[in-house]
Amino acid sequence: MVSVQEKLKKLAEEIFKQFKEGEKVKLTLRARGTLKTIVYDQEKDLIKLGEAFSIREFFNLRHVRKFVQTLLVASLAKKLVETGKHASLREVYYQLKHAIPIIKENTFDDQSESDSVIEDLERTLGVIREEMHITADRRGFVYGDVTMRDKIEGTEWNCMKLGRGGWAIPSTIEEIEIVDVNADFVLAVETAAMAERLIEEKVPQKLNCIIVATQGQAARGIRRLLHRFRYEWDLPIYVFTDGDPWGYYIYSVIKRGSMKLSYISEKLATPDAKLIGMTMDDIEKYDLWNVTEKLKPIDEKRAKQLMNYPWFKHPKWQEQFKKMLRWRVRIEQQALASKSLDFVAKKYLPEKIENQDFLP
Amino acid sequence: MVSVQEKLKKLAEEIFKQFKEGEKVKLTLRARGTLKTIVYDQEKDLIKLGEAFSIREFFNLRHVRKFVQTLLVASLAKKLVETGKHASLREVYYQLKHAIPIIKENTFDDQSESDSVIEDLERTLGVIREEMHITADRRGFVYGDVTMRDKIEGTEWNCMKLGRGGWAIPSTIEEIEIVDVNADFVLAVETAAMAERLIEEKVPQKLNCIIVATQGQAARGIRRLLHRFRYEWDLPIYVFTDGDPWGYYIYSVIKRGSMKLSYISEKLATPDAKLIGMTMDDIEKYDLWNVTEKLKPIDEKRAKQLMNYPWFKHPKWQEQFKKMLRWRVRIEQQALASKSLDFVAKKYLPEKIENQDFLP
Repeated sequence: MVSVQEKLKKLAEEIFKQFKEGEKVKLTLRARGTLKTIVYDQEKDLIKLGEAFSIREFFNLRHVRKFVQTLLVASLAKKLVETGKHASLREVYYQLKHAIPIIKENTFDDQSESDSVIEDLERTLGVIREEMHITADRRGFVYGDVTMRDKIEGTEWNCMKLGRGGWAIPSTIEEIEIVDVNADFVLAVETAAMAERLIEEKVPQKLNCIIVATQGQAARGIRRLLHRFRYEWDLPIYVFTDGDPWGYYIYSVIKRGSMKLSYISEKLATPDAKLIGMTMDDIEKYDLWNVTEKLKPIDEKRAKQLMNYPWFKHPKWQEQFKKMLRWRVRIEQQALASKSLDFVAKKYLPEKIENQDFLP
Repeated sequence: MVSVQEKLKKLAEEIFKQFKEGEKVKLTLRARGTLKTIVYDQEKDLIKLGEAFSIREFFNLRHVRKFVQTLLVASLAKKLVETGKHASLREVYYQLKHAIPIIKENTFDDQSESDSVIEDLERTLGVIREEMHITADRRGFVYGDVTMRDKIEGTEWNCMKLGRGGWAIPSTIEEIEIVDVNADFVLAVETAAMAERLIEEKVPQKLNCIIVATQGQAARGIRRLLHRFRYEWDLPIYVFTDGDPWGYYIYSVIKRGSMKLSYISEKLATPDAKLIGMTMDDIEKYDLWNVTEKLKPIDEKRAKQLMNYPWFKHPKWQEQFKKMLRWRVRIEQQALASKSLDFVAKKYLPEKIENQDFLP
């Protein structure tokens, strides 16, 4: 396998060769993921990036800025990997932002510029930014019988022995080794409050599972961790979100990746993850009508958007969206508390798992 | 000391007595904290709630809804404390939301109603919601040589032995015992990315400190934890935020509480906390002009608001705001990366601490 360092070096060598030999100096980059450039791989249930490319020429006034920015980021990435340091997206921006002498033009005016160059490099080199030692925002925590080891610091811990706090998931999850796991499945939970409920009710002990709180949309570190639980430890991943388009999209991103990051779906996504709840059917089955919330126009719009994505065409999903739009309601995880605080732990989750009652 | 249970019981007994003896049935509640009702205690540098009260009568159409809601929440809180369970704000809402028979009126239509009743009870009874086992949103993590113990689960861990992840701070921090601390001070850091930088640069080891990442505005669990580090372990608290009105307000809330929660400032706040940076002076001293960001109108408005709060009247603070408004810039923590990635760890922080160069 070609290392990230070698890939970065090769990129630079090609450019250097073009300059030296008087060729047209240009970078060939893979195009961004949008509804038009992505391909939905139905068989693998993955969102993938199609084979589209864009060219950036050095001797082209419209291209030269992006061209230079790409080389600046590539050079910094090489330095980071070589020195073993990491930099956040924001630090990359600030490290590289400076006025170029004489022409007095800023290398970068805005972080969005460096962010998009980083994504260009990820796509083009086929590496993830974490491999270039560029870190994303961190969020989320783990609670459960997993022993982990930090390869750099050399420390080792068990995520069930940290009280009710749990282990905070860093952005540098690549350098964390999963040493041992004693669990039957992983439950990815949208809200921290629901995760705390399940911890208080001893769900990890009783159902023998690991809880990963995503605290909203799953950060990249969380998605990588879920991916690794699935493929390194063969654990099924069940996702537990609010019953609304936003929750369902959190699930979808964990399961099959996002359009924007479609070029690395295979490293980030977990295609056979299942949604355990909340579903629209739950409202009927558990008579939760009283504690539904009204769909807002923005929820409705988003639900219609999701319905039209090829990866939500499964009849079971279409049915959920149709019910949501017909009833004009959404249902939150914590609405289960209307039954009793421990209803989710004693009845809802065990029943779903027993009957394998999931959405695909 | 009167226990929370007894306080809740006494409240109910009073109401019961009023009903039985045919008195006017009413609740006397402490008024909410606003710029008008709060008092700034300059000597203690604390925002406190003044002695204003509001009355809610049962036989008053305008009051009865809130009256009933207050008793519902008080009754649930008593049950939570008695059973040792916790409920999130959202769960409290869903637990209590139901249609009252015959009149078919909902007890609560919206979570904001139950949230505000919980605050009424906190103010009136002089307890914090955590003592009523009602939990707030959790956020943030700790890294450093602190040994902690979960009083309920009985597990014990050291926050420097969890790799670069660190310990995720739960909302139930009251039940976590701080067993041992080996550090000279606590550094509360606004962004997770900066906290990760400091961990990578081994700042906790080199400067012998504990890092607490707030990840934005400090959640109540974080504020309680900082308060406890200060008062149980006598550690100075240094706060490290972006150099903008939002960062300075994060600092202010950690230091002297917020208007809204002014009734519990003494339990949540840490009045002798200091701001270590980013300051406007830093821009001059370290020549960071190149990496400042332009002040947006909303930043400017907020800066002017803060300048007028009595607790920002210190000449040093007035000077910061004047510079910010004159230069029309703000400066982020991560802008220090423009010097070098380790500048913050090797020069900026050690120099500030050496010279005790803080804002009050």
